[in-house]
Amino acid sequence: MGLTMKAAVMHAPREIRMEERPRPSAAPGELLVKVRHVGICGSDMHFLKDGRLGNWVVDAPLILGHESAGEVVELGAGVRGFAVGDTVALEPGVPCGACRNCMTGHYNLCPEMSFMAIPHERDGVFCEYVSHPAKMCFKLPANVGTLEGGLCEPLSVGLYAVEKSGARLGQSAVIFGSGCIGLVTLLVLKAVGVVDVTVVDVVQKRLDKALELGARRVIRGDWEDAVAALMATGGCDVVFDAAGSPVTALQATRVVAPNGVVVMVGMAADPVIGLDVGTLAAREARLETIFRYRNHYPTAIRAVESGVIPLKNIVSHVFPFEQIAESILFNMDNPNEVVKGVISFAD
Amino acid sequence: MGLTMKAAVMHAPREIRMEERPRPSAAPGELLVKVRHVGICGSDMHFLKDGRLGNWVVDAPLILGHESAGEVVELGAGVRGFAVGDTVALEPGVPCGACRNCMTGHYNLCPEMSFMAIPHERDGVFCEYVSHPAKMCFKLPANVGTLEGGLCEPLSVGLYAVEKSGARLGQSAVIFGSGCIGLVTLLVLKAVGVVDVTVVDVVQKRLDKALELGARRVIRGDWEDAVAALMATGGCDVVFDAAGSPVTALQATRVVAPNGVVVMVGMAADPVIGLDVGTLAAREARLETIFRYRNHYPTAIRAVESGVIPLKNIVSHVFPFEQIAESILFNMDNPNEVVKGVISFAD
Amino acid sequence: MGLTMKAAVMHAPREIRMEERPRPSAAPGELLVKVRHVGICGSDMHFLKDGRLGNWVVDAPLILGHESAGEVVELGAGVRGFAVGDTVALEPGVPCGACRNCMTGHYNLCPEMSFMAIPHERDGVFCEYVSHPAKMCFKLPANVGTLEGGLCEPLSVGLYAVEKSGARLGQSAVIFGSGCIGLVTLLVLKAVGVVDVTVVDVVQKRLDKALELGARRVIRGDWEDAVAALMATGGCDVVFDAAGSPVTALQATRVVAPNGVVVMVGMAADPVIGLDVGTLAAREARLETIFRYRNHYPTAIRAVESGVIPLKNIVSHVFPFEQIAESILFNMDNPNEVVKGVISFAD
Amino acid sequence: MGLTMKAAVMHAPREIRMEERPRPSAAPGELLVKVRHVGICGSDMHFLKDGRLGNWVVDAPLILGHESAGEVVELGAGVRGFAVGDTVALEPGVPCGACRNCMTGHYNLCPEMSFMAIPHERDGVFCEYVSHPAKMCFKLPANVGTLEGGLCEPLSVGLYAVEKSGARLGQSAVIFGSGCIGLVTLLVLKAVGVVDVTVVDVVQKRLDKALELGARRVIRGDWEDAVAALMATGGCDVVFDAAGSPVTALQATRVVAPNGVVVMVGMAADPVIGLDVGTLAAREARLETIFRYRNHYPTAIRAVESGVIPLKNIVSHVFPFEQIAESILFNMDNPNEVVKGVISFAD
Repeated sequence: MGLTMKAAVMHAPREIRMEERPRPSAAPGELLVKVRHVGICGSDMHFLKDGRLGNWVVDAPLILGHESAGEVVELGAGVRGFAVGDTVALEPGVPCGACRNCMTGHYNLCPEMSFMAIPHERDGVFCEYVSHPAKMCFKLPANVGTLEGGLCEPLSVGLYAVEKSGARLGQSAVIFGSGCIGLVTLLVLKAVGVVDVTVVDVVQKRLDKALELGARRVIRGDWEDAVAALMATGGCDVVFDAAGSPVTALQATRVVAPNGVVVMVGMAADPVIGLDVGTLAAREARLETIFRYRNHYPTAIRAVESGVIPLKNIVSHVFPFEQIAESILFNMDNPNEVVKGVISFAD
Repeated sequence: MGLTMKAAVMHAPREIRMEERPRPSAAPGELLVKVRHVGICGSDMHFLKDGRLGNWVVDAPLILGHESAGEVVELGAGVRGFAVGDTVALEPGVPCGACRNCMTGHYNLCPEMSFMAIPHERDGVFCEYVSHPAKMCFKLPANVGTLEGGLCEPLSVGLYAVEKSGARLGQSAVIFGSGCIGLVTLLVLKAVGVVDVTVVDVVQKRLDKALELGARRVIRGDWEDAVAALMATGGCDVVFDAAGSPVTALQATRVVAPNGVVVMVGMAADPVIGLDVGTLAAREARLETIFRYRNHYPTAIRAVESGVIPLKNIVSHVFPFEQIAESILFNMDNPNEVVKGVISFAD
Repeated sequence: MGLTMKAAVMHAPREIRMEERPRPSAAPGELLVKVRHVGICGSDMHFLKDGRLGNWVVDAPLILGHESAGEVVELGAGVRGFAVGDTVALEPGVPCGACRNCMTGHYNLCPEMSFMAIPHERDGVFCEYVSHPAKMCFKLPANVGTLEGGLCEPLSVGLYAVEKSGARLGQSAVIFGSGCIGLVTLLVLKAVGVVDVTVVDVVQKRLDKALELGARRVIRGDWEDAVAALMATGGCDVVFDAAGSPVTALQATRVVAPNGVVVMVGMAADPVIGLDVGTLAAREARLETIFRYRNHYPTAIRAVESGVIPLKNIVSHVFPFEQIAESILFNMDNPNEVVKGVISFAD
Repeated sequence: MGLTMKAAVMHAPREIRMEERPRPSAAPGELLVKVRHVGICGSDMHFLKDGRLGNWVVDAPLILGHESAGEVVELGAGVRGFAVGDTVALEPGVPCGACRNCMTGHYNLCPEMSFMAIPHERDGVFCEYVSHPAKMCFKLPANVGTLEGGLCEPLSVGLYAVEKSGARLGQSAVIFGSGCIGLVTLLVLKAVGVVDVTVVDVVQKRLDKALELGARRVIRGDWEDAVAALMATGGCDVVFDAAGSPVTALQATRVVAPNGVVVMVGMAADPVIGLDVGTLAAREARLETIFRYRNHYPTAIRAVESGVIPLKNIVSHVFPFEQIAESILFNMDNPNEVVKGVISFAD
């Protein structure tokens, strides 16, 4: 056995073990990256808690983590445009590059997608090294750190959600759910001039974070009350359900203004959800969905670089990789405490 | 009392009485039109059957009918561009013209809309004469008759539905429901080069009509079977629910192809409907709604004029105005017999 | 003769006379507004200098000025939603409201448009009172003054220009011309997250203002040098020609990035201009034009209200109405000195 | 030397020699295709006549021809979804698959594009065999022959041109130039319900073909007369310059209706062209350009398969491969005679 690395491997619900694994090397077209920061995503916690997420089942050891950035330590054959020592953000999905979806730019819908930390696709990055196709790696400028580089992954979701909403300067918005995705959506809205943003949640700590990040107002408590309050001023032009519950999805369809848009960002456990289609139709509103993101990393990085998106402000906890197992469990068990956690690797 | 006219007035469920009413005259900016043809719409039958449709309640005598065309017999002050003897199609809704929705072209969402045959808005056109704002009247060319002129109303719905779907040349489509709206949607799809159209319904006579009008295939029977059959070939790029039932709405969200669109054209009685949001999200599909139409009459007329839309082929029954009461009841009581009925006025 | 007011009337090139005119009153549907602030636009100066602008010729006495806001002093019959004492911005064009362009929301293209300070349309607002249709008046919130209200007119041009460009968060932009329109375009770009903005002009004072308002870089001098500098970094995603000269129009088409957009905001004297169509085609770029604006006042006001657009910062000079004649001539004769002038009325 | 094939190689202007060349074999991911039909494109004739086209210079022997289809005779390693004996249309450009343009679906703008019959990119298909990446090959259904398969290349240009125009059912169109590209644009317009199409050219034979293919009217002669005639009816919603001359480009910008679109499809020799920007701005018209096409082969094939596009009707001459040299010269020297020529290979 040659070089090795430490990897945090999930074996069963609530069970992560630190193991020695062979250190990968860079195949042609790939970069070998020493991982520096990896965000902890809700999906990681779903897998760890339930051993599954929707149809994906963890039926073999799996390395979780897919919001990562690190330092290039080796270039595979044929790679151009990168150098050892560059810091890069890693877009976690590797599409086939040849199907209709890939050719038209909708590579996120590639039926042969191989995505980090998804069972039977590819391992994630809760480990010291990863080799990844250069075309899915994005160089970070000097003033964008690897912590922010890792967070370009959820930021890409927020960028896509806002893009699909078609939100325009001066419109009004509401976000149901003030977790990581709700917060990055808020940051993106403000960056494009949508400053009249209401955030609705049941956890005060999350709402405090939303206010700190620039929400104009927050509503805590019963979703129906929130709808009544928002409709009193005519409804919202763009509505985001970033909570992913059947209740918020239904209320999202009730609070949209005429000619408005509802974007389903979260995903509920049960696919069939009761929506207020009658209200959508009477107001001629549109409902958009997103599946991950596509081509948003470059925009994410530029937005952070320019200061338009103060991305690192969403982070509430940074945990060392050495204590990853207990950290993720802590994160999982204290949703009202941890707004957004990130794993940090020692130099 | 001056000049009078005959009007078919609804007084209660299943009760229409022929009455003498004062003949209107053309106010400034209006045209007085001698009605020639009026289509019988599903909403007319809903009102006549139940005394209501959604939140609209027939609590006073009401003239039904809103799919009309006729001959100009008088011009109000200030009207330009029309002459006595012109035939015109009448767009039934009169918006305020000053609110944000009107100014931006979304006049169909005008909160002060006054629409024919809607309680507390304005009477419909099951009567001999109607005075209507010239700006909502559209001159018919020589080769477009008033029967087709009246049917430009449902055709406008089909045009808007297809416009919202963004259907493009060469895509595949499915329409749930082969009634009037389903059929005009089919005609529009074919006119824009979407020829791979499947129509699903439970009534054979309606499916026969769909085949006659150019559906590539029809599926009769169980909605779930239809979904299975359609998914076997990858799903449909654009999906129309023109049946307006909770079951078809749900199935519509299951049969859409990746990156596809579902358009809700019909309206179910209960506003809350269970949709397969999980499937929509996994395929990143969009859901569109329409509320009537806006600015589609000119396109409708040109499409009929040019022969691209063989509109009159959807008509299965023409009834004389003198027998309107029994005709509408016949239409209402024989949904499997009457695909589309139209009222014709004697010269 | 009843009540009168002072009006600054243009009689010939360089000749403006203060006259007593009858004070208008509010016709049905109109508001009578006591004017408080009116911006001085390039078109005012064109008329005053040459007696014409394109095909418009000042062949009769004309009141100039169309960037105005003031206080409501009288309501015409039927007006709702306004009260005496409200401050309002006046959108200067009055469309017919009935033609195809009006019905579809493109009222700026209405063939019967009656626009302030355009010969043979309607007088402008370099006068103490004006009566204007309420639907073209927009209430100002408490924290938006009438100086900013008047400037919502050029801001609307900037909003429309950026809307047509489709500029997105994180893209790069260049603006040729750092006059009033170039500067509002810069403000809008920054408001929607396009912070990598280069401004090109030949007048240092204007470039200083651009830098003060947040341009990332400015280029002074030869247009071809500017193109070379911008192409060295791959060209710009969105390009605005706000200078309106044949030279800048040509260079604008040379500096656009692949898949980019060029927006022609200014208007050159000669309609035929040589553009680099070969370069546009090789990069598959789009060229957009705008004619004034449509439905942008509400957005303009909200953007100023929320602080996203620091609109009053573009103003360099405020002149009292009493000295309007010499002020406009000063403005006209010192283009390198006056970035943006506004006329202010005494209380 | 192993297997060989015949190839028609251009060595100098007007000089094509039939040579024996090594027969290629299918590299991994590629298909080896026995060529059956290849259309003769205007660019082939430009190269053959002048030895150059814009910046591309034929400075070494080059096989021309890029509108091809044939039969699969060998599959490279890893190819799925194809079988020996399939007939396929070959999209002639091979993009890198990894750059920003490729990832976003704009692969036609890939800076590393390798396109058939372009100097220093790759040889064309005036030869018996070609090996081509499977992802750029498109299987032909039973009722689409290889002649039509080859013509899917220019049809893709027409599809893209119409897509960029946003042409909608019932609009009016004009096409300047009734050569191959003008005619495919006409076919596409009709397929999407734009039947009010005027075609303008100076060659009667081409106009006869346009009428045969369904143009509503043709105008022969002076371009300015054509503009006057078209403006008499209000201008055209969508305008295509498929002639690629400075004169037609200028006239195209004068004949567009308010809110209309001009698409530059052809390419003039000199990149700088005088356009009527004043008219574009006064009518708020948009100018679009296209560079080849992207992702249009599947649509092209489906449109031909369904009968919506009678593609082979544009062909006026079929020449045998054995006589290719004299055939292309004949084609080149008789532009008024040959509307569209195709090279056919013996079985």
